[in-house]
Amino acid sequence: MKSLQQLTRRAALAGLTRPRLSSQIPSTRSWQRNFGATAAAASQLLGLDPSKLSITKTSTPKELTPNNELVFGRTFTDHMLSIEWTATDGWHTPRIIPYQNLSLDPSTCVFHYAFECFEGMKAYKDHNGGTRLFRPNKNMERLNKSSARIALPTFDGEALTKLIGEFVKVDDRFIPDARGYSLYLRPTMIGTQKTLGVGPPGSALLFVIASPVGPYYPTGFKAISLEATDYAVRAWPGGVGDKKLGANYAPCILPQLEAASRGFQQNLWLFGEEEYVTEVGTMNLFIALKNKETGKKELITAPLDGTILEGVTRDSVLSLARERLVPEGWEISERKIRMADVAEAAEEGRMIEVFGAGTAAIVSPVRNISYRGKMVDCGLKENEEAGEIALKMKNWIEGIQYGDEDHPWSYVV
Amino acid sequence: MKSLQQLTRRAALAGLTRPRLSSQIPSTRSWQRNFGATAAAASQLLGLDPSKLSITKTSTPKELTPNNELVFGRTFTDHMLSIEWTATDGWHTPRIIPYQNLSLDPSTCVFHYAFECFEGMKAYKDHNGGTRLFRPNKNMERLNKSSARIALPTFDGEALTKLIGEFVKVDDRFIPDARGYSLYLRPTMIGTQKTLGVGPPGSALLFVIASPVGPYYPTGFKAISLEATDYAVRAWPGGVGDKKLGANYAPCILPQLEAASRGFQQNLWLFGEEEYVTEVGTMNLFIALKNKETGKKELITAPLDGTILEGVTRDSVLSLARERLVPEGWEISERKIRMADVAEAAEEGRMIEVFGAGTAAIVSPVRNISYRGKMVDCGLKENEEAGEIALKMKNWIEGIQYGDEDHPWSYVV
Repeated sequence: MKSLQQLTRRAALAGLTRPRLSSQIPSTRSWQRNFGATAAAASQLLGLDPSKLSITKTSTPKELTPNNELVFGRTFTDHMLSIEWTATDGWHTPRIIPYQNLSLDPSTCVFHYAFECFEGMKAYKDHNGGTRLFRPNKNMERLNKSSARIALPTFDGEALTKLIGEFVKVDDRFIPDARGYSLYLRPTMIGTQKTLGVGPPGSALLFVIASPVGPYYPTGFKAISLEATDYAVRAWPGGVGDKKLGANYAPCILPQLEAASRGFQQNLWLFGEEEYVTEVGTMNLFIALKNKETGKKELITAPLDGTILEGVTRDSVLSLARERLVPEGWEISERKIRMADVAEAAEEGRMIEVFGAGTAAIVSPVRNISYRGKMVDCGLKENEEAGEIALKMKNWIEGIQYGDEDHPWSYVV
Repeated sequence: MKSLQQLTRRAALAGLTRPRLSSQIPSTRSWQRNFGATAAAASQLLGLDPSKLSITKTSTPKELTPNNELVFGRTFTDHMLSIEWTATDGWHTPRIIPYQNLSLDPSTCVFHYAFECFEGMKAYKDHNGGTRLFRPNKNMERLNKSSARIALPTFDGEALTKLIGEFVKVDDRFIPDARGYSLYLRPTMIGTQKTLGVGPPGSALLFVIASPVGPYYPTGFKAISLEATDYAVRAWPGGVGDKKLGANYAPCILPQLEAASRGFQQNLWLFGEEEYVTEVGTMNLFIALKNKETGKKELITAPLDGTILEGVTRDSVLSLARERLVPEGWEISERKIRMADVAEAAEEGRMIEVFGAGTAAIVSPVRNISYRGKMVDCGLKENEEAGEIALKMKNWIEGIQYGDEDHPWSYVV
């Protein structure tokens, strides 16, 4: 475990690197802070250790917000999980402490160079009063990838999952015990080094906060409308669009506001001259259509080519589709599809349904997509708010999340 | 001034937007926080008002760091400039306060979605003991563009320049009075809204901190070696690479560490199949060569196509070159150039010199560039650390910055 951080950092570099050249030259001046020391010390660094957890309970417990007044990410529980990391020592003592402000020097690198990454996951109450997480290993894996990509530390995913379990137990009373409700968990890693020099942070803070949330569609599904964005680009090959970095979010707000100003709920990011369909504002996208060549029903989502966020719900939808829809005659494809081909499928009556997939709503049915001045109809009947596949997926995934179905994806705290 | 913010936000959108479609549909559900209210209230918002400045002096003044111990961005002055903004009120009272930590809720959007942008500028002591800024209007212009691009507020640039002037006066004793030394200023804007919902921040903080810095090359120029990066991409057309956003920095660290591990001071970002030369880690790049077709001396830098940071030093070098080098027979070009063409110029003995340009070092001569396993020689003799143009530029620009030459670019505080 001690060398995991080192290994993962190396792995992240390996994914980026090209073969070393023979023409290596000596450094004439170190422009950035010396990072060699960090690498050398890595083998003595402390790993994340749940057995060292210290818990300080709040003396001023909050009142619970009534379920019907919950707004996503607006109210938080009594406590937070907080773990410091330094390049010299590794991971410090994990602490559960009263929810509190972070006090940071204004030169801290998180404010200037976006040394920040995060995860979104949920804790659910099952019918026995137990608490469950959904595929937390996927979140831990992704947070490690995100963190390593911006030179922040990595950690033992199982250790953090255990610690999150303890945190969730401490704030158990905040998990709403009703179908569709859950406790949204936000693991976050930030660089905390106090210097304006642009280099790998010598210190970091990993914290987890929790917000009780209600169902995305309290009164049942509501199909949304998307605007295809061709004037701005979210991600590109060789970039960081596949990582859950803060850096991927702020630049997306204006195109989203533009779409909203014309009445669309989200924008759909197209890529390149081919106008490939990539993903929606905060979700991956699935398109179900009748394939022009084969005539078979095909469920399509963009492949993980480095420009697509590796959504946990995306992966879950794909797995369940391969297990449960293929026997019904479906083809499941991770492939590029051009927006023009989506429009053509709609025109030719081959469109079955379209939906977004993400942690917030699980699935989010799409009614239509504005593209080049036309509305592409996504196959729903006028009085219909969700297609068959979207409905099935929501029920299957929720069934696992709330423990109705016994499944290895469900992690009992 | 009151509606400037609104106008600039609009302008930022206009730069991004495509023609409005006739197929506007009503919103079925507001996924994000309501931003319509913000726009409606914009006309009543307060502008940034230097006449309202309040100053609270520190009771514990710091000791000055000796000039020879100054490290870039490591020590800071006694005070900071701090101005809050809210969507409902606009800009609050500007305050100069003792340098202090920021206390922020862990759900604050700057930690999660990289709502942050910044500037780098310097204050210089002239030979009369006066204090000067260098082209502050350019920094204000760029900060407004950066801020608007991530849905943060804009401001009256002249007002902020005045306030920075007052701040610099308060911390005057920290400006080292020696050639090559200066007070580095870091205006920073962060989103401060306390919610995990992804949307335009309803509140922000604009702060300026100051760090006394020494000359980049204390013992004279030292030419650097670059590694051309072809496996990772810094910016993309339609992206935000031309803005000074935090989001552009964290993702650049790993390629920089990779280059450093092989002994190179910085990496050089190439773009696309053509491997166009774009910019260096934290600088724009200039290439001086004999043009193959015309035989004329040509000074080349990448054009502002949306992937290149609009460097103030870049602009200054171009202006001075057009004014002072063109009469000497130089051609000055903002044009794309392929790395292969740079290598060819070197092989054919047409390379004159290469240098980076940025606020930190003004110019930074380049000895060679590692590219496809070969070292591209950039024209310096073995015992030479800077070319003629780099030297001239440094002297010209420093002469203006320190007020030796009377020039409209120099702003007396």
